[in-house]
Amino acid sequence: MKPELPFSVVRAGHAELRVRDLAASRAFYEEILGFVVTEERDGQLFLRGVEERHHHSLVLTEADAPLVSHLAFRVAEEDHLDALASYFESLGCRVQFVEPGTEPGQGRALRVQDPFGFPLEFYAEMQQAECLLQKYHLHKGAGVRRLDHFNCFVSDLARCEQMWREGLGFRLTEYVETDDEPRAKKAVWLHRKGNVHDLALMEGLGPRLHHIGFWMDDVVSIIRVCDILGGAELHTHIERGPGRHGISNAFFLYLRDPDGHRIELYTSDYLTVDPDHEPIRWSARDPRRQTLWGHQTPESWWRDGSPVMDWDSEAPVALSGATDARAATYIK
Amino acid sequence: MKPELPFSVVRAGHAELRVRDLAASRAFYEEILGFVVTEERDGQLFLRGVEERHHHSLVLTEADAPLVSHLAFRVAEEDHLDALASYFESLGCRVQFVEPGTEPGQGRALRVQDPFGFPLEFYAEMQQAECLLQKYHLHKGAGVRRLDHFNCFVSDLARCEQMWREGLGFRLTEYVETDDEPRAKKAVWLHRKGNVHDLALMEGLGPRLHHIGFWMDDVVSIIRVCDILGGAELHTHIERGPGRHGISNAFFLYLRDPDGHRIELYTSDYLTVDPDHEPIRWSARDPRRQTLWGHQTPESWWRDGSPVMDWDSEAPVALSGATDARAATYIK
Amino acid sequence: MKPELPFSVVRAGHAELRVRDLAASRAFYEEILGFVVTEERDGQLFLRGVEERHHHSLVLTEADAPLVSHLAFRVAEEDHLDALASYFESLGCRVQFVEPGTEPGQGRALRVQDPFGFPLEFYAEMQQAECLLQKYHLHKGAGVRRLDHFNCFVSDLARCEQMWREGLGFRLTEYVETDDEPRAKKAVWLHRKGNVHDLALMEGLGPRLHHIGFWMDDVVSIIRVCDILGGAELHTHIERGPGRHGISNAFFLYLRDPDGHRIELYTSDYLTVDPDHEPIRWSARDPRRQTLWGHQTPESWWRDGSPVMDWDSEAPVALSGATDARAATYIK
Amino acid sequence: MKPELPFSVVRAGHAELRVRDLAASRAFYEEILGFVVTEERDGQLFLRGVEERHHHSLVLTEADAPLVSHLAFRVAEEDHLDALASYFESLGCRVQFVEPGTEPGQGRALRVQDPFGFPLEFYAEMQQAECLLQKYHLHKGAGVRRLDHFNCFVSDLARCEQMWREGLGFRLTEYVETDDEPRAKKAVWLHRKGNVHDLALMEGLGPRLHHIGFWMDDVVSIIRVCDILGGAELHTHIERGPGRHGISNAFFLYLRDPDGHRIELYTSDYLTVDPDHEPIRWSARDPRRQTLWGHQTPESWWRDGSPVMDWDSEAPVALSGATDARAATYIK
Repeated sequence: MKPELPFSVVRAGHAELRVRDLAASRAFYEEILGFVVTEERDGQLFLRGVEERHHHSLVLTEADAPLVSHLAFRVAEEDHLDALASYFESLGCRVQFVEPGTEPGQGRALRVQDPFGFPLEFYAEMQQAECLLQKYHLHKGAGVRRLDHFNCFVSDLARCEQMWREGLGFRLTEYVETDDEPRAKKAVWLHRKGNVHDLALMEGLGPRLHHIGFWMDDVVSIIRVCDILGGAELHTHIERGPGRHGISNAFFLYLRDPDGHRIELYTSDYLTVDPDHEPIRWSARDPRRQTLWGHQTPESWWRDGSPVMDWDSEAPVALSGATDARAATYIK
Repeated sequence: MKPELPFSVVRAGHAELRVRDLAASRAFYEEILGFVVTEERDGQLFLRGVEERHHHSLVLTEADAPLVSHLAFRVAEEDHLDALASYFESLGCRVQFVEPGTEPGQGRALRVQDPFGFPLEFYAEMQQAECLLQKYHLHKGAGVRRLDHFNCFVSDLARCEQMWREGLGFRLTEYVETDDEPRAKKAVWLHRKGNVHDLALMEGLGPRLHHIGFWMDDVVSIIRVCDILGGAELHTHIERGPGRHGISNAFFLYLRDPDGHRIELYTSDYLTVDPDHEPIRWSARDPRRQTLWGHQTPESWWRDGSPVMDWDSEAPVALSGATDARAATYIK
Repeated sequence: MKPELPFSVVRAGHAELRVRDLAASRAFYEEILGFVVTEERDGQLFLRGVEERHHHSLVLTEADAPLVSHLAFRVAEEDHLDALASYFESLGCRVQFVEPGTEPGQGRALRVQDPFGFPLEFYAEMQQAECLLQKYHLHKGAGVRRLDHFNCFVSDLARCEQMWREGLGFRLTEYVETDDEPRAKKAVWLHRKGNVHDLALMEGLGPRLHHIGFWMDDVVSIIRVCDILGGAELHTHIERGPGRHGISNAFFLYLRDPDGHRIELYTSDYLTVDPDHEPIRWSARDPRRQTLWGHQTPESWWRDGSPVMDWDSEAPVALSGATDARAATYIK
Repeated sequence: MKPELPFSVVRAGHAELRVRDLAASRAFYEEILGFVVTEERDGQLFLRGVEERHHHSLVLTEADAPLVSHLAFRVAEEDHLDALASYFESLGCRVQFVEPGTEPGQGRALRVQDPFGFPLEFYAEMQQAECLLQKYHLHKGAGVRRLDHFNCFVSDLARCEQMWREGLGFRLTEYVETDDEPRAKKAVWLHRKGNVHDLALMEGLGPRLHHIGFWMDDVVSIIRVCDILGGAELHTHIERGPGRHGISNAFFLYLRDPDGHRIELYTSDYLTVDPDHEPIRWSARDPRRQTLWGHQTPESWWRDGSPVMDWDSEAPVALSGATDARAATYIK
């Protein structure tokens, strides 16, 4: 058995997105995607999927410009937060604890700007909310079930992967690698909860959020979203898909929300709890990693991402690393 | 080419059901089944499926007791109504013409009590209504697409089949027959529009409506109705299914509406337009005709039906023929 | 009632395609698409869908180069063939009768090169074959159910539409039209069997076959084909889709067979039997006619088509009319 | 944090079933359910689901009478087996280690007859096998994806639950309980891998296996199995369903294999990794726990189970506890 870490991250927990028009965003997330509104107050909307039993997996905050305020992970126990704080301090990061309720519905939380610029939050406790999974008559639109994962652009992939795997205990399930010597990883899929990922990292201009992935019940629910968007003449929200990823085997659809934040509707990946689960390597030249069906990925999908917030200044974190064009070179 | 009839029935057109609580029925048909309300007036609700472009395929009329007010068929041209009137008069039936608009949205119509007691209506013209097929964002509940067929209990099946086939030009696609000599048909499926049926006749205590069948987009939409009903704790509306009929190959679900009228959600039958299309014979002893999956049919499905109205008295037509028990003997 | 034509076309019946490698084509049509082989002889393969009860809806004939040997329509009665022959002779076409069995499984047939260059065949009789619809355990791959329609490029759309509608009794359900004055139709969807089409005509370099459409049971069966092709690394057969057409509301997938002939897997259109069924107009500038989801149609889909055979010379018919580029201009 | 156990069970791993006719069983599991055969030797068949990367999740062993030879759980590390042996010895159980390869493909394993009579096996290592998840063209029949859970009848539910939860670290997700005082649990759902269960225990005549549950991709795959079985006239293998459980929210189908062993095809439950995940209580009187759709559960489902083997004598373990009738009383 590996040396145990003094904390255990359970899963990707929630994200906070800044949006410019809360009413427009609410219409998109509630009516089209089928999120349930737990609470609205002070220009913020707290949303959860129909399966989720906690106060929120997504926070929308009205603001002047789109931004990712933070990405949050749930830990197993309250005192793991202190151990995590020590870890991040050892990396030279600014850390901050916030009191229960600072974020509505949430217990004490640790906030940290990680070495790659991401505004992370860790928490163990969140207020319960009603699970609507079996209240099928109340499901709307896509009926999104639950948060599944975050996918981020990062400029220094190798070090970032190392932090998440060695430092934070995430396990690798799939990765994209160049075929040249020395080989270099270009993207990694990392999990804690037992499916393909809680967090994917792609080399590129970062720190930026590429997308948030939400779990869907099945293929048909995803086709249904396309029809609903098409019927409402909102099809420009569809950026890519539906299709079948080689990586993760997921049936996917990528949408852009009213502020351009990218949402993936995702289903049909696989179980990864076995300790001897062997990561799958994909060559950066293999187009099947992107899709088994041979569809082209649109340029915007390679290029665009949401900037992230600096916890202190509340301004966007400056970007560095490969320009989009360079990043795109290897993986198209 | 057979001697042409002087009229052409196009398809099953609409039905009118008396219900005791229009608000309760509206909730069931609009929210659960997803019918679109074209018009409500004078204690009547005019409904259509999301694909339908006419004023109504179902009329719900508030009354003291449940009853089938009439079953209506669309004919190809307005003057076919006169030819049909002559035909029914030749059978000794009472016929009556009603002016355009007598039934809201409908043109001139012929009303007749057929020799077996059914209150039939024939019409060529009906007001157009918006087709909501591609307005997927407006679909609710089951999203019923269109009327498909009527299924009726009749006491004298042989003569009734003869009237519909020889007199009215319906074509036989499938039938259930005893294996004893002389063989006797126990049920027939008859069509005009090119799929398995517009009208099925089952021997039994009649005249009664067994069910109205509505076309659904696919299997998943039907599973979805079960979940919606289950979620809303309205599952007692589910009488039978989902399952796969041997007869017609349909994927089916039978519901009972708040007044006990039976509705079938139906999909996945087949094309029958070929003139040499050979009717399929099912032995009355073959359980696969009822379902390919081996499920038992509940007693109520064999037994219950909705009485039908006498056009003159507006009272239920008296029943005759095999008692339910006898009818049930052969087909369970 | 309109003056009756002295014949009645029932539906699109079958097509014959020349292919270069019968074994390769058989693998594609039988294993991937799930066609049932009725008979193989003399370098020909006779195929039917799982629902079909006739000897074939598709004939594959081994030859040096890909070509569409003929497109066939079923008529209601045997002597309609003579009336059809007269009609085509009145248009100045070469007509020819072939004896029963000339095409295996088929009765007497009329062969004609229509004024637009298409090698048409009409027939009333075809040998029965076992319907495998309910033998679900024998279905393979996509489990294609039945032939649905042909879609053709024609250089003189206006005259060709007139022949099919006025001369042959087809009914218009949808059409694409320019917005300029005078308006000009660019494509039409014509049916006999009661759904959106048996034949679509698109203005372009013709005579060529754009695709043959086959009916599928549902959306999921079509997604399944993508996965099967992807799994087998045969995804380059996928040319376009899956998606939702505005026109016809069909859920579609376009494949290219090993010779480049285009096959559409098609489901979820609507009933069109009503005599007052109003054709739907789409502006040639409206991208929603192509897809409700906003996907781009690949260039090849606009450009490529299969040449058709001259009955006499058995050589490809020379092309005329708008070049692909021009044709593509209005509809992209 | 709770005191850590000195071992970690990862998930339900595999089962071995004795069957009377290996060829008949192979046809059922391979052609109908779509299992992949990893190896056949010495009257044994080693099977895995299309997603699985290990040698087997199901072993079929030809024998004179049906029996459950063992139920196996995977542990995280090889030396956990020793700690587990100590635990079971502390309960007074017979334990035995078997060498790698004793069961083909498997590493060193611990075998134990647990206090309730179940022949359990624990192992950390198993030979890798090819994952066929993305080889969609090779999937057959139901295309079963992976083992999900075991469900067992046990006579002393309270003590058995205690062993699995406190002794072996399983977590409770749902349970059925009487409403009388003192309340008594009648069934429990326990997991390690993060969904609803790896093991369910139901009070009844035990030790017996009620069923093995396998994960399916979606609802449609399960409907497909019904059609395949119906088409092949093998529908008597269908015992119950398809339907939607209240408990676990699963969409389910129960089949009986050629020897009467019960297999559940299962999909659409939910994520349970959160440490504060609150178990759901169902009243033993609430019919919705069995199905949200109101269907009746057949008597055989309550009554029948497969006896289990004594590791030493290889004979069936004697039964004790509530008779089936009594067991059935509370839950019907």
